[in-house]
Amino acid sequence: MERTTYRLEEIAARFGGRVLGDAGTTVNQVGALDSAQTGQIAFLSSGKYRAQLAATRAAAVILGEADAGATALPRIVCGNPYAYFARVSAFLNPAERVSPGNHPSAVIGEGAQIHPTAHIGPHVVVGARARIGPRCIIMAGCCIGADVAIGEEARLYPRVVVYHGCVLGDRLIAHSGAVIGSDGFGMAPDEGRWLKIPQIGRVVIGDDVEIGANTTIDRGALDDTVIEDGAKLDNQIQVAHNVRIGAHTAIAGCVGIAGSTVIGKRCRIGGSAGILGHLQIADDVEISSFTLVGKSIRAPGSYTGIFPFSASEDWRRNAAHLRHLDELADKIKTLQHEIEILKGNN
Amino acid sequence: MERTTYRLEEIAARFGGRVLGDAGTTVNQVGALDSAQTGQIAFLSSGKYRAQLAATRAAAVILGEADAGATALPRIVCGNPYAYFARVSAFLNPAERVSPGNHPSAVIGEGAQIHPTAHIGPHVVVGARARIGPRCIIMAGCCIGADVAIGEEARLYPRVVVYHGCVLGDRLIAHSGAVIGSDGFGMAPDEGRWLKIPQIGRVVIGDDVEIGANTTIDRGALDDTVIEDGAKLDNQIQVAHNVRIGAHTAIAGCVGIAGSTVIGKRCRIGGSAGILGHLQIADDVEISSFTLVGKSIRAPGSYTGIFPFSASEDWRRNAAHLRHLDELADKIKTLQHEIEILKGNN
Amino acid sequence: MERTTYRLEEIAARFGGRVLGDAGTTVNQVGALDSAQTGQIAFLSSGKYRAQLAATRAAAVILGEADAGATALPRIVCGNPYAYFARVSAFLNPAERVSPGNHPSAVIGEGAQIHPTAHIGPHVVVGARARIGPRCIIMAGCCIGADVAIGEEARLYPRVVVYHGCVLGDRLIAHSGAVIGSDGFGMAPDEGRWLKIPQIGRVVIGDDVEIGANTTIDRGALDDTVIEDGAKLDNQIQVAHNVRIGAHTAIAGCVGIAGSTVIGKRCRIGGSAGILGHLQIADDVEISSFTLVGKSIRAPGSYTGIFPFSASEDWRRNAAHLRHLDELADKIKTLQHEIEILKGNN
Repeated sequence: MERTTYRLEEIAARFGGRVLGDAGTTVNQVGALDSAQTGQIAFLSSGKYRAQLAATRAAAVILGEADAGATALPRIVCGNPYAYFARVSAFLNPAERVSPGNHPSAVIGEGAQIHPTAHIGPHVVVGARARIGPRCIIMAGCCIGADVAIGEEARLYPRVVVYHGCVLGDRLIAHSGAVIGSDGFGMAPDEGRWLKIPQIGRVVIGDDVEIGANTTIDRGALDDTVIEDGAKLDNQIQVAHNVRIGAHTAIAGCVGIAGSTVIGKRCRIGGSAGILGHLQIADDVEISSFTLVGKSIRAPGSYTGIFPFSASEDWRRNAAHLRHLDELADKIKTLQHEIEILKGNN
Repeated sequence: MERTTYRLEEIAARFGGRVLGDAGTTVNQVGALDSAQTGQIAFLSSGKYRAQLAATRAAAVILGEADAGATALPRIVCGNPYAYFARVSAFLNPAERVSPGNHPSAVIGEGAQIHPTAHIGPHVVVGARARIGPRCIIMAGCCIGADVAIGEEARLYPRVVVYHGCVLGDRLIAHSGAVIGSDGFGMAPDEGRWLKIPQIGRVVIGDDVEIGANTTIDRGALDDTVIEDGAKLDNQIQVAHNVRIGAHTAIAGCVGIAGSTVIGKRCRIGGSAGILGHLQIADDVEISSFTLVGKSIRAPGSYTGIFPFSASEDWRRNAAHLRHLDELADKIKTLQHEIEILKGNN
Repeated sequence: MERTTYRLEEIAARFGGRVLGDAGTTVNQVGALDSAQTGQIAFLSSGKYRAQLAATRAAAVILGEADAGATALPRIVCGNPYAYFARVSAFLNPAERVSPGNHPSAVIGEGAQIHPTAHIGPHVVVGARARIGPRCIIMAGCCIGADVAIGEEARLYPRVVVYHGCVLGDRLIAHSGAVIGSDGFGMAPDEGRWLKIPQIGRVVIGDDVEIGANTTIDRGALDDTVIEDGAKLDNQIQVAHNVRIGAHTAIAGCVGIAGSTVIGKRCRIGGSAGILGHLQIADDVEISSFTLVGKSIRAPGSYTGIFPFSASEDWRRNAAHLRHLDELADKIKTLQHEIEILKGNN
């Protein structure tokens, strides 16, 4: 595949920043500082990678004002090198064009409204009355339920399932295996058995959301499950019924969020963390990987609950005391008391 | 969509309970106390939501004897309001009718026996000799392996995979992306490599089981993996080979259960918990979310192993001592000893 | 189905070992010691199951030299009974033959090169220019992206997705729902929003790798995500972008591995463990289930970080002290100091 080539001055004209060094330097792809090849443009976003600057084979570098003098390579100096790099990369790596229209193997339900600029891939199934907006790309094997509404320019990778009635915003990206709108886990105990509670809410997803591979988002029991604008969900996340995830919150892989919990805006949740149900998490909260949040968090900040790992024999020796911490604390109290007595005696 | 409307007296005639207030009050949908709209019937199952009763816009309420006088709204008083609500909701929200027969795009293997009342959706693949019972609904893109047997009225949402030879009971609900019967993780070490152990057991699932989206249940290595009647599995659960899950046990999302573990009946396992392999868990055991069960549990009861979270700086200060608990315990012993000596000296 | 029958002497001629007892004993299937039926051959790999030998109904047993005299049953004595058993089982349970060629419902992209001995199942989609090697079996509903390359004899169970450009080695086994090559979770913060970083690396998988059901492996951001030869991944594992997993490393279910982490060769990682990003894990490291690895591990060995579970009331009593460990440690220091003073005073 022939790659299109751009001069640094062309890039700066489009995305801003100022060019130092030869503005006619051409690049055709992005690369990492330590592995970039000829013709690639790399970036430096943190001082700790500055050592890689000396050895890089990149043709040019994107960096911040503080690092403007750290290399003699042709470079673009800008305020947010990582975001700049993201824009350049998107520019150099445009999404592949797909032709509009429905693949002949797709099965389209009665009354479905598919915009003529949308692409419906092979073996896709679109339910009755579903609406799919302009320039959407629905790839092979996706199943779109009845009465689903999808905005503009959504991109569903192969084998995404959207259950009936869900509403997806503009520019949604959903990766393969994602399931949106499956039944929440709602059951009433009834004489030693479980009676299923019909899940009649929907999933409602805002604009500019990304949903990772094999992530599952359950529909609401009565009201809706809601993912607000700009939220980003990594792979294999489980979002239970009636959860609300605030705008621009980012959640790493394998996180589980139990029912009816409300997560604020701009939160960052680390991989494999868990959040129990019916909790409130404030805006701007950061939760460490592998942390279980068992009660509401009312103030922004960083929260952690990780058991530190060690060599297994050390762990065994130390962990044995965890089941006796209360006794240890009692012993300390007793000691304090006895020392007071001893001191009194003296 | 026009909703059918029912009078409270009609509902009570069907499901029992006694009506207080206007028995001719009509409802056409269920709702939550705090968000119900005109024409909806809500429920009160716990005293802690009683405050919502005053403000609800619900047309009627289902509640228990203890709360019978807590509102002047038309109401149905019954023994188990939540279960009653579940029944009313199922009644008001009947599953959409699907027409029997095989979609022309489905691929049906030689010798497969599909009951004429079953529905086989678009792009479904049914393997050779598979048997699918009366009134089953196999939705788009499901793959049913050779020699699989499915009972009556099972409901497989889009893109469920059932590997060859598995046996699924009546009224199974399996959500999208569930995989039933994949190979267990069995390998013999052999001169620095892993030699695959063929997994020749099956998955055998009882009646009235529900399996969540993207949950995986591995087939047995030699004998079968078994899910007993009425067990309910949420999304993204991993059930390894030769596990047995007892009747009416409910397992929340993201739980992992390692090979050959046997879980009793009526257990409740919280989200993201883990259970190691070759263990026995008694009947009526409750395991908290995020708890790793590392040895067998012989007695019913509630079990927990969660590291409590806190602000990250507090966590850092406290967690640092976990790698030195054994030293702390030793210091306490030494102190006790020294105090004994001091006391003796006095 | 008629099973083929073999005499022990035939098996030993093929796989080595020596036969004790009647070498003409015939077997047609493998079984477990405690559940084997007539005509089945079981194995004993560990002394702790020796008690099952007495009661087994197996026709013959595979065991090691140390146990050669532990039964009077016809038996094959060999160096590694478990590996021997694996080979016999594979021999007695050959994979079902599938006929080469493309199912008429498959959709094959322009310029795709599918070897004539490969099998392409119903509703499979193969992208443009993809190459699929000899004797590959691509089962129903798989989606193979453009420019993907798959080696020889790979076996993709139904509904595997491989994104564009990924490279898969010989004899890969990928189970249903696996997603290979989805976008890594890469985003630049930009004025309160997240800007997507195009993920332009690939996933490159060596030979003899197995990937479990619903496991996800993200493509690299700039460079590739790499799974080396002989690595075995169980179900529901999440491998983030630019991770490298060393040869013959085995990873149990539900593990999450964050971006750019490099895992050595022959490691064993327990279920639901987690490994943070940008870490190095040495060769021959064993990580316990449910352990979060938060920093690099430079030396082989076994590592653990599990919070021990207990009855919930005990847990509550003990865990309350975890948020005050630092105070406890301080109190101990104070006590030590006071005792020193007291001792000095005496």
